[in-house]
Amino acid sequence: MGRWQPDARARLQAAALALYGERGYEETTVAEIAERAGLTKRTFFRYFPDKREVLFWGSELLEQQMVAAIEAAPASASVLGMIGAALDAAAGRFEEVREFASLRRRIIASSPELRERELIKAASLVAAMAEALRKRGCGDTAADLAAWTCATVMHVAFEQWVDDPDQAPFQQIARDALAQLREITAAG
Amino acid sequence: MGRWQPDARARLQAAALALYGERGYEETTVAEIAERAGLTKRTFFRYFPDKREVLFWGSELLEQQMVAAIEAAPASASVLGMIGAALDAAAGRFEEVREFASLRRRIIASSPELRERELIKAASLVAAMAEALRKRGCGDTAADLAAWTCATVMHVAFEQWVDDPDQAPFQQIARDALAQLREITAAG
Repeated sequence: MGRWQPDARARLQAAALALYGERGYEETTVAEIAERAGLTKRTFFRYFPDKREVLFWGSELLEQQMVAAIEAAPASASVLGMIGAALDAAAGRFEEVREFASLRRRIIASSPELRERELIKAASLVAAMAEALRKRGCGDTAADLAAWTCATVMHVAFEQWVDDPDQAPFQQIARDALAQLREITAAG
Repeated sequence: MGRWQPDARARLQAAALALYGERGYEETTVAEIAERAGLTKRTFFRYFPDKREVLFWGSELLEQQMVAAIEAAPASASVLGMIGAALDAAAGRFEEVREFASLRRRIIASSPELRERELIKAASLVAAMAEALRKRGCGDTAADLAAWTCATVMHVAFEQWVDDPDQAPFQQIARDALAQLREITAAG
């Protein structure tokens, strides 16, 4: 029971998503998730603090990687270039979870508690990116605008990517969206 | 008791805001709000369905006016021009409530239920603007991007406006922010 399970986290996530989809998030217990994954409750709590965080595992890493991309952009990079780099970083994370993305979105939409949690994570991501952009020399307002714009493009591209019948890569969809946004604002 | 109170809505709003600020939103009852306003509970319910909606009264009107501004933009208007027109429409609404804007923001931040409600209103506004932009000939993705961009500029400008020691008009702050966003995206 206490021994190392090489793919325990992934099994627990898959089991949780499946149960939330079948029975509803509220109605599913940690014991049921563990049982479906063939693991114990104790193992569950080694990986996740609660059943909600199963859905948000990876969001800290997403934030770190998007911030790191802004920090690592070349000195010559424009603000839009930094946003593009952050979106490319997000693409890598999203492709890893494509399989669950549509179901996860549906589960989150079903619960006010989960929607609230998702929005808090999004606000944290925007704040972290704005901070990173300030450190790269952006003024306060420009940093906020750019960070929100990055979140906007990510959100619009994500919605398109999840439903895309051609399963185009997130990176391509996000880059196209960023280019489209540029066109819109340039044509003012 | 049942007679017409010319400024009842404004009095109820002022009383509610004051009480939410003093005691907390959760702890305040409709009876207390009515009493503070010198009115009855029955009068309260003639103006608001519940104590939460006191904080969101006017958001439908804001949405209608921003959508109407997009619809009324000249045929030659660019997408950015339509966003600008929608922001100008918002400016008129915001200036009317400047007095309460900072307190209202603090109260909403204090309650998950209120934050959730605010985000639902924001999502509704974005969806309505995107729909209006589609009717003006925007493609699906461009309409979503433009509507979110409008919300982004509104949000960033609002935060600046609420805290602005010089009390600059919202319209000016929003126009400056839109111009800055344009610079950011043009410099890509």
